[in-house]
Amino acid sequence: MASKNQVFIAIIGAGGVGKCFIGQLTELAKRRPSPRLSLCYVATSKKALFHNDYAEVPTADVVAAVAASSRAPPALSELAEYLAKAPAKVVLVDNTSSQDVADSYPLFLSRGVSIVTPNKKAFSGSFSLWRDIFAASATSGAKVFHEASCGAGLPIISTIKDLVDTGDEVTRIEGVLSGTMSFLFNSFAPLNGAGGKWSAEVAKAKELGYTEPDPRDDLNGLDVARKLTVLGRLAGLEIESPTSFPVQSLIPKALESVASGDEFMQRLPEFDSEMEEIKAAAEREGKVVRFVGSIDVGAKQVKVGLEKFDRSHPIAALKGSDNIISFYTKRYGANPLIIQGAGAGGEVTAMGVTSDLLKVLAQIS
Amino acid sequence: MASKNQVFIAIIGAGGVGKCFIGQLTELAKRRPSPRLSLCYVATSKKALFHNDYAEVPTADVVAAVAASSRAPPALSELAEYLAKAPAKVVLVDNTSSQDVADSYPLFLSRGVSIVTPNKKAFSGSFSLWRDIFAASATSGAKVFHEASCGAGLPIISTIKDLVDTGDEVTRIEGVLSGTMSFLFNSFAPLNGAGGKWSAEVAKAKELGYTEPDPRDDLNGLDVARKLTVLGRLAGLEIESPTSFPVQSLIPKALESVASGDEFMQRLPEFDSEMEEIKAAAEREGKVVRFVGSIDVGAKQVKVGLEKFDRSHPIAALKGSDNIISFYTKRYGANPLIIQGAGAGGEVTAMGVTSDLLKVLAQIS
Repeated sequence: MASKNQVFIAIIGAGGVGKCFIGQLTELAKRRPSPRLSLCYVATSKKALFHNDYAEVPTADVVAAVAASSRAPPALSELAEYLAKAPAKVVLVDNTSSQDVADSYPLFLSRGVSIVTPNKKAFSGSFSLWRDIFAASATSGAKVFHEASCGAGLPIISTIKDLVDTGDEVTRIEGVLSGTMSFLFNSFAPLNGAGGKWSAEVAKAKELGYTEPDPRDDLNGLDVARKLTVLGRLAGLEIESPTSFPVQSLIPKALESVASGDEFMQRLPEFDSEMEEIKAAAEREGKVVRFVGSIDVGAKQVKVGLEKFDRSHPIAALKGSDNIISFYTKRYGANPLIIQGAGAGGEVTAMGVTSDLLKVLAQIS
Repeated sequence: MASKNQVFIAIIGAGGVGKCFIGQLTELAKRRPSPRLSLCYVATSKKALFHNDYAEVPTADVVAAVAASSRAPPALSELAEYLAKAPAKVVLVDNTSSQDVADSYPLFLSRGVSIVTPNKKAFSGSFSLWRDIFAASATSGAKVFHEASCGAGLPIISTIKDLVDTGDEVTRIEGVLSGTMSFLFNSFAPLNGAGGKWSAEVAKAKELGYTEPDPRDDLNGLDVARKLTVLGRLAGLEIESPTSFPVQSLIPKALESVASGDEFMQRLPEFDSEMEEIKAAAEREGKVVRFVGSIDVGAKQVKVGLEKFDRSHPIAALKGSDNIISFYTKRYGANPLIIQGAGAGGEVTAMGVTSDLLKVLAQIS
């Protein structure tokens, strides 16, 4: 039976981030006995593990247990019904990148189920979904936190919220928001002037697991556009969608419609000279080229693409696959508030989710 | 009369930060009607404005109103009694740097009064005071937040808390934590190799209001030591006090006991050659000298003083009076999580206090 000092946790998604989150949740439950965190639901896209009487699902080996479950996941509307009727408060942890799950956030929230998630789709989809999510939260009192939707565990979402909520005015946001793009340009056009051919760097990044299986899913810039959409909206802009502003794709036109990622990789070297020319143009100005997103809040301008930076600029000095973001605000003046560090990876992304969970728990329990 | 949806705010301190906070609070109350924030007490070190029946004190011109008040501030024990009996929850905003007020935090917290503050003294004094503060908070449920005790509005305290609370292991912390020291060294030993004489840079900083009235209060390193004490404790170290580890003072021995700040400034040029030699030694290695604090958590080593940095190091590239802090952790690996920006100033410090107030409100109302 549920006690007053108990919170139910429901998890959708048990991939890279999901597994790390389950590990962090297990440790968290050991360290903090109150409130008791009872896992009541775990699902992948194919299987689900839960009990109709909300009996606790043990976290040990739960990923294997879900895979072995005989139950298919219920429809999201049924899941909302199940969680709404739980005998204690519920936090839904959405560790997927599913648009379907994101589309159901207003439903979950309106039924009193709080949400923590790294899923960008909910906050970078249509503006009406954004509005519905926060309206449902305001009405029911259920919380929704999404730190890891931008920059993984880096305190980016919480910082822009604090700036805005305390009455500061964010005037400009600029940053490298894709770990993949960061790695590619830090290798292709490093400060020391070396760097390999563009297609070779993409191949290396793919090999190291820094790109999506089809690298075009990174090179199209949409991931950065989604993150900028989230940040721009938090800064007060009504951005209709991540395709409603200019996004420069690094996929050569001729390769946009080739059948497979493999064919794309095979033909990419044909376009090395184009990228080489872009790099050389920057070097002639004493600069380096980077793939950045920027928002001019006053001018309501959002854009994603290649830009040149002085070699002394923090963006030029970035290392590895780190993200960096600069918030220019009225209070901070000429020198922005800057946050930098790993913006991808299972553990640091799960950390963003876990810290959100702790914030929700502090508010609802 | 108090309604359920009301929170009383009591403010001690109406100096630079206090005035900015009152401005931010006034705007906040306009933007967010719920919960109703009722100012019930404002005091300076000499005067206090409050009503025995907790009638609201208008925020308009409140600083002048306090100065004109005929009441002296009550003893802190009486204030605790007054606030504990308020007909709604109370948040005490301590905008002083008073050790006396800090020493009373356990009392306020044990009486159910939450606290938000930029006052470092409470968290960098004796370790027993630290323990008493958090024990009182845990027992009563009253909250205590102190973001602005380190780096003003920069998300430093919240970030280290999130890292630790989600189970990451902070291994090393390094940073420039004093706006004054940042300004001095960015001017004295800039990356471009220029820079004036040490005593001239100190004089300039004093003139611009970047130092305490007696610059020795910055040059002794104690401000940085206090901030490191707070961070080290949050990282899990039982640091006894800010004088329990090596702190390099930049006050020449011979000038430690001169009577006044003015005399100190007059005689400082006698020691320019010493600082010039330190700068030259770094330059011979192709480096720049900076005044930093660092914590090696595993080795339990805390230190404050001059260090040399490669010209490509983020600490070397700092501008103006900006702070920078790097958190090295198990999850973040070789590349630290870095936060950078203005770490001093009325509005950004008050922003740290206001964002803490919002967090407390989200938890108690």
